[in-house]
Parts: sequence; C-alpha cells; structure tokens
Amino acid sequence: MPQTLDVPMLLLWMDLIGVFVFGLSGGTLAVRHRLDVFGVMVLSLAAALAGGVVRDVMLGSVPPATFRDDRYLWAAVTAGMVAFFFHPLVNRLGKPVMVLDALGLGLFAVAGCQKALLYGLSPLPAAVIAVITGVGGGVLRDLLVSEVPRVLREEIYASAALLAAAVVIVGDRTGLPELPVAAAAVAAAFLLRVISVLCNWSAPRAPGS
Amino acid sequence: MPQTLDVPMLLLWMDLIGVFVFGLSGGTLAVRHRLDVFGVMVLSLAAALAGGVVRDVMLGSVPPATFRDDRYLWAAVTAGMVAFFFHPLVNRLGKPVMVLDALGLGLFAVAGCQKALLYGLSPLPAAVIAVITGVGGGVLRDLLVSEVPRVLREEIYASAALLAAAVVIVGDRTGLPELPVAAAAVAAAFLLRVISVLCNWSAPRAPGS
Amino acid sequence: MPQTLDVPMLLLWMDLIGVFVFGLSGGTLAVRHRLDVFGVMVLSLAAALAGGVVRDVMLGSVPPATFRDDRYLWAAVTAGMVAFFFHPLVNRLGKPVMVLDALGLGLFAVAGCQKALLYGLSPLPAAVIAVITGVGGGVLRDLLVSEVPRVLREEIYASAALLAAAVVIVGDRTGLPELPVAAAAVAAAFLLRVISVLCNWSAPRAPGS
Repeated sequence: MPQTLDVPMLLLWMDLIGVFVFGLSGGTLAVRHRLDVFGVMVLSLAAALAGGVVRDVMLGSVPPATFRDDRYLWAAVTAGMVAFFFHPLVNRLGKPVMVLDALGLGLFAVAGCQKALLYGLSPLPAAVIAVITGVGGGVLRDLLVSEVPRVLREEIYASAALLAAAVVIVGDRTGLPELPVAAAAVAAAFLLRVISVLCNWSAPRAPGS
Repeated sequence: MPQTLDVPMLLLWMDLIGVFVFGLSGGTLAVRHRLDVFGVMVLSLAAALAGGVVRDVMLGSVPPATFRDDRYLWAAVTAGMVAFFFHPLVNRLGKPVMVLDALGLGLFAVAGCQKALLYGLSPLPAAVIAVITGVGGGVLRDLLVSEVPRVLREEIYASAALLAAAVVIVGDRTGLPELPVAAAAVAAAFLLRVISVLCNWSAPRAPGS
Repeated sequence: MPQTLDVPMLLLWMDLIGVFVFGLSGGTLAVRHRLDVFGVMVLSLAAALAGGVVRDVMLGSVPPATFRDDRYLWAAVTAGMVAFFFHPLVNRLGKPVMVLDALGLGLFAVAGCQKALLYGLSPLPAAVIAVITGVGGGVLRDLLVSEVPRVLREEIYASAALLAAAVVIVGDRTGLPELPVAAAAVAAAFLLRVISVLCNWSAPRAPGS
C-alpha cells in the first residue's frame, strides 16, 4: 500500500474488507441454518452493513457511507454469493463463522474508533462507538436467526473490540502513523479473540452468582 | 386521484396506507399471541412505524416524517384499535397477517425507493433502502414476539421488495409518470409475495448444504 | 436542587439517573443469566444507553448526548460494576430488575418527552418518542438475552411511560414550572408500574381472542 494512504482512504478499505468478511460470516451462518438463496443474501447484508450504518447514523454522517459508495453493497453482495456457492470451501476454515467474525470485529472496531475520533469525540465515547460498530453486525445477524448474540455468549468479544480501540486511541494521542497503528489494532483484536476461543479462556463471573 | 399528484404527496399516501396495513398486521399478530390491549397497541405501532423511521434516519430526514405529521401516528393507532376490536373480521381474510404484511411490504418498498432517489442516492443503495424500509417493521414485529422474522423464514419476501424497487428505478430512469409506476410496483411486489405463498414456491438452497 | 434549574440541566440529570438505574437493571439481569464480567458490562451499557441514543438519533441531535458528555458512559460503567460486585445487595430490593426498570422507564419517558417538545414536536409524536425512549433500553436488554421484552409481556408498561408523557405535556401547555412537573411525571409512571405489578393488575384482552 502507498505511504500516502490517508485516514479516509484507510477507513474506506477497512470498511470494505470488514463488510466482506462479515458478509461471509452471515452467509455461512445462513447456509448452516439451511436458509434459501434469498435468506443467505439477507443475512449476509444484515451482518455486513449494520455496524457501519449504526456508526454513521450516530455520528451524523448520513446517508451512511454504505449508501454513498456502491462498493460497500457490492462487497456485501459478493460475500453473500461466495457463501452461497462456495460454502464448503469457506467451511474448510476451522470454525469459519468465528474466524471471519473475529476479523470483521477487529476491522470494524478500528474503523469505528478512527471515524469517531475524526468527528471530534473524546476517547471514552470513541471506544464505545468502536465496540458498537464492531459488534453491531454480529448482534443483528445472531438475533435474526434466534441465537443469543456472541457478544453475550462469548467470554472475550466486546473486550477484543475494546483492545483495538485502546490501541487506536493511544496511537492517536502519541501521534504515531495511522496505517501501522490500525494494522496492529486489528491484529490485536483478531488474535485476542481467536486465541481466547482456541484456548477456551474464561472471564470471571460475579461473586456468588 | 388528481393528475397533479406530485411525488411528496404520493409518498405521503403510500406511507400512510403502509402504516395502516402494517399496523393491522402487528395488531392481529398480537391478538393471536393473546397480548392485552397495550401489547396490541405496542406491536401495531412497532410494525407500522419502524420501517419509515429507519428509512428517514438513514436518509438524514429527521425528525422522521412519522413524527412531523400526526396522521402517521393516528393511522397506526387506528390500525391497532381495529385489530383489537375487529380481529375476527380481519381474520376472515385468509392468512391475514401474510396478506396485510405483503401489501405493506410493497407500499413501503416503493416509498423507500422513491424517497432514496429523491435524496440523490444511486439505484443500488436506493434498492437496499427500499428493502430495509419494506422489511423493517415486520422484522421488529416478529423479533418482539420471538418469531424468526419472515424475511428469513419465507422463500419470496425480500425479493418481492427488490422487485418493487426495480420497477420504481426503471420507471425513474425512463421518465415514466410516477403514479402508474408506483401502482405497478406495489402490485408486482404484493402479487409476487401472495402468489408465492399460495403456490408454495421455494427458492434454491446452497448446493450441498 | 437550585430553583434556577433549567430544562437542559434537568434533562441531563434525569438522563444520568436513568442511565444509572437502567444500567443496574441490565447488569443485574446479566448476573442472573450467569454472564461473565464482560457480558455484564455489555448488557448494562446496552440497557443504559439504547433509549437515549435512539431518541437523539430520531430528533437529529447527533452525536447523541450519550457520546458528547463522558458522564453518561461513566454512569453506565459504574452501574455495570456495581451490579457485578454488589448484586447480592441490589437483590435485596424485592424484584430488583422490575423496580430499577420502572424508575428508569419514568425518568427516560419524561426526558424523552421534554426533549421532543424542546425540538418542536407536537404532543402526540412527543408522547410516542417518550414511550420509545422509556422502553428502548429494556427492549434491547431483553432481546439480547432472548426474553420476550417486558413491554409486551407486562400488562402496564408502555402505558406507564404514556402517563408520564401526558403529565409533562399538560404541564408544558399550562406553563407549570418544569421541575415539579417532571418529578410528578416520574413518580406517576414509577408508582403506576410498581403498583400494577404488586397488585397483579391485568388489562383487557381482545374480545374472543
């Protein structure tokens, strides 16, 4: 990637890759629930677009980027079609919904945090927007097929998005260059999430609950 | 209707009729779930208003038309009361929730598409906004009573909204008069949806799923 | 409280107390569902913030107050931590989720109504915004743990929010001072809700349903 990559361009690419992998996660889950081709497309688009739309609506950036740049929708539609036709390939990934979801979570958390800072929010709200952007698509996807959303079911999930936001905020405050910071933040969230699942980490429950 | 019917007026009337029939569908479903009078009103209003509110929030048309013109709320409240007091009459329709929902789906998809084009969106985003507007009220209605939303359960549903959007977009591009195009689009979505249910059409599932 | 308390200041305090008690209700419900510490924080924040965010997005007041003033998020985070560490204490309240939820319902309904009037909406839409603000956090909280939302399950719920809105609107039209009107409105909603639960009141069902 060019060294002159600016924040809006970085945001766009993280958004687009996040849309694609979340779309794949939604489509794969839909195939697993034996939905037909239309159900696969609906769940792909819902998973792919919800986080970014909610982020932009809350920041007052309307119509959301999703609807101002056709590439967002093409990325989501392509993801749905790939999930529909090539789901055996996607399923070769161990736990494909989890892995794709973890990558989308990291990308969207970072994009959410950056855009919130760009709109002048302070760090704490920016971190909350990051978490909402990261988990939003997955929450809608899981609610639509009547599963308890992963964000509540899984030990390390919102906290992975929070870690990504923390990296972005520290990078922003210390004036580090955006691209390596964003890459480190996405990687941190993705690895924390995937390793926590593989190692079966658990977080403490309330004392006496 | 007068020949001078302009797009905002056409939008208003499609919105109002859509609100009323979606409100009826929500109220009828609530009665079937044996909810009390307040539950019937809540489900009526949720089904009637969600699609239009989400559309307007995404387009940046806030406060949404729903809250700027009291007729929207009166249409929804009336629908709830009709469902509560006259549900045996409503139930004389074969599959009343399905038929009302199909009509609302067509009306809201067309209104959503027209308003998105009016706000300068390009065809693909306008079609997605049309689908969200059309299915939004039904999704919230179904989630609130813990049913899997029809948009995922049913073979032909989002695709009916998409067909309506396609008709509106083709009409817009070819400069045809708005009213007949809108009527044709609503009729196309409604008929596709109802016939697909009556004939038990099914869409393909993913190969090997 | 000072006599010079103006509406924005009154709004802020009702919002903050509402955020805290809804946060407690979400956190307590999460502990009851045996979620871990992160799940408790997510459910606290979702319950605490959803109503106000939806209200502000619908009124076009973006970014929502929740994200412009850090005290909102601190109130929600504190509520989550109190629920996590001190849930046995919270549980000494009879039916703690219900009581906290009833208080939050009243506070948010009043704040929602006042802010809607401040933004120039007429009484009927202001009342609907009041109900949405009051019930929004609870709906999201209940949906996330796969419970049918209280607003549908409970006899007197949306109607308690509506009563609060009616008191605020009458006070506004007759030019009564804001603070006592707001206090009376919150008390009316809270008492109606709690007494209806304790006395097991029921509302009529549709004839022949």
